[in-house]
Amino acid sequence: MPAFEIYTAPRIVFGAGALGKLPDLLPPTAARVLLVVGARSAERSGLLARLERLLPVGAVARCEREPHVDDVDRVVEQGRAAGCDAVVAVGGGAVLDCGKAASGMLTNEGSLVDYLEGVGRGLQINRPPLPMVAAPTTAGTGSEVTKNAVISGPGFKKSVRSPLLIPRLALVDPELLRGLPAAVAASCGMDALTQLVEAYLSKNASAFTDGLALQGIAAAGASLLEACRGDSDDAREGMALASLLGGVCLANAGLGAVHGFASPLGALFPVSHGVACAALLPQVVRANLEAGGAALRRRFARVAEALTGERFADEQEAVARGLERLEALQRELGIPRLSALGITEDRLPEIARGSRGSSMRYNPVELSDEQLLGILRAAL
Amino acid sequence: MPAFEIYTAPRIVFGAGALGKLPDLLPPTAARVLLVVGARSAERSGLLARLERLLPVGAVARCEREPHVDDVDRVVEQGRAAGCDAVVAVGGGAVLDCGKAASGMLTNEGSLVDYLEGVGRGLQINRPPLPMVAAPTTAGTGSEVTKNAVISGPGFKKSVRSPLLIPRLALVDPELLRGLPAAVAASCGMDALTQLVEAYLSKNASAFTDGLALQGIAAAGASLLEACRGDSDDAREGMALASLLGGVCLANAGLGAVHGFASPLGALFPVSHGVACAALLPQVVRANLEAGGAALRRRFARVAEALTGERFADEQEAVARGLERLEALQRELGIPRLSALGITEDRLPEIARGSRGSSMRYNPVELSDEQLLGILRAAL
Repeated sequence: MPAFEIYTAPRIVFGAGALGKLPDLLPPTAARVLLVVGARSAERSGLLARLERLLPVGAVARCEREPHVDDVDRVVEQGRAAGCDAVVAVGGGAVLDCGKAASGMLTNEGSLVDYLEGVGRGLQINRPPLPMVAAPTTAGTGSEVTKNAVISGPGFKKSVRSPLLIPRLALVDPELLRGLPAAVAASCGMDALTQLVEAYLSKNASAFTDGLALQGIAAAGASLLEACRGDSDDAREGMALASLLGGVCLANAGLGAVHGFASPLGALFPVSHGVACAALLPQVVRANLEAGGAALRRRFARVAEALTGERFADEQEAVARGLERLEALQRELGIPRLSALGITEDRLPEIARGSRGSSMRYNPVELSDEQLLGILRAAL
Repeated sequence: MPAFEIYTAPRIVFGAGALGKLPDLLPPTAARVLLVVGARSAERSGLLARLERLLPVGAVARCEREPHVDDVDRVVEQGRAAGCDAVVAVGGGAVLDCGKAASGMLTNEGSLVDYLEGVGRGLQINRPPLPMVAAPTTAGTGSEVTKNAVISGPGFKKSVRSPLLIPRLALVDPELLRGLPAAVAASCGMDALTQLVEAYLSKNASAFTDGLALQGIAAAGASLLEACRGDSDDAREGMALASLLGGVCLANAGLGAVHGFASPLGALFPVSHGVACAALLPQVVRANLEAGGAALRRRFARVAEALTGERFADEQEAVARGLERLEALQRELGIPRLSALGITEDRLPEIARGSRGSSMRYNPVELSDEQLLGILRAAL
């Protein structure tokens, strides 16, 4: 058994209606809250007003896209001007990441760029950020329990990463997913499923993350289609759970080639992270299984059983059914192919080269340049 | 799906040799450490000296039994006199509990008695305790990730409980289990298994705890006999993992009737917590399954598969094999019957009455007084 480390939010509160508990859940020292919300939360009927009633708000900051360095700078400036002593972010993964980066930059010196992996001067977040509460309104990234925030800038999309950036409280209220557009629910849900599957198959998986990943895969398998098609409390709860567990798993087990590809896809093309993952998951898993050995097939058979909720006497059958289910999800959710996203064959080598980042290192098998290109072609 | 809350140590470091990382893992503010050790750790060849080399030790406190109020008072006094600013506890569950209670009383006013559930004035730990590292040397209680400390006093054995008491860092090094006497390994191991099984069957179980509990049960099932009989690194790792996961699960899912009984058994008789659990686990599970419905049998069938590492096509067979395995463990590990512990039939009503504490509330079925007595008679 390999050694492992687990970092996670010291407190997770999960359940329909949990947002109403916010006043009791704030750190007792929080007197002026920097509230970070996205476009959808801000406009949604009553949500912003409700948050302003629940919280001692010092400033409201908007984050209306996957955050760029200057978006975070602006949020930090707002928080500083208002003398805020805590951060509450309510929104999708981009909003939570913006809040996390801002909570860190409100207590650490210098420019955010210098803290971004592979971009700046390699500075580390070493002072505790402002106490932070993260409440997701999409089910996808699990950012409420992870230690990184993904930030874009000219020609890059990189992470600031530190265990100190894990929110103090992850507040997961499935009711906040109500009314999510179907296409967003689909791409976010496939992102959550990708994180769970990649974390379970990761070289760095542990018994701790394995148990959570299988629960999350089962929840996603039972809920994803329904969450995108219907108006079901159970399906929203299932996907909120899958996303939360995916966050715990990815933060501690790492990911794989799908996330390796998602980084250049997001930096080079106007493709959201969720769509990038959704467009590649079955293709990457199939290539990994073809390149990997018996142990990997055995692991994927467990994934297949969790995903389908079935038991297979035969491992080969489990693998086949699992791959079919992943492909069916991609198809039935209407996930676009790479070509429909404006990606042409001549750009594939550039994407393949850009994929060898931090996620790729935990992919269960080493993939050659030719294998990487083969995956992209299969998804084109 | 029910709502749930998860509290756990924000950082867990697991693996053979992890103790050597202590200098890098201490909170940066720790300049004078209150080191709490048990009799075995203190005497063990080189361990105390090694800890004194690894840590800026301000004071060394001993905890040589399941801690009483005055033991904790003495440890607090030592820490205060030496101006300690952090606590590191290395030992069995009793030592970790002593360290946790001391870390809380070093920053909170008044007498520990007033913080004990059902004993004192119901005071709450509301100031953050001194930063605390917990490193277990037995595999049983999972105290390194739980929010309570069990403290004895005249005629009682009760908990001080607060999320703030969860150690900042759980440092689980299976090498620290080396040389554990077989009888201690057996009773502690059965305690860990009991915590996992009761948490999985608890009324308050969640998808989060379920995933971890099944992993822990599988680890205990594969390792417990070997850990008590042989000198196996793998078995020690398996039991250290089972104990850790049991701690996360019990702290968040609650327990059941076995732990209900363990409280009066420990308060009224000189019976260690592990032995009390080990002496009652199969008997309680059998009574619960007889009194419970189909959903409970389905849940226990999952326990049985994890415990045996086998797959059963038939649920009834799974239940039967699971119960047999629990009974076989009790027998093969030489766990004493209650009568061998000096408990006579006339004391059973008193034990049954005392069992309706906080753990009993999460038992999957309501047990009548007659059913409680029946369990005790079956274990006599």
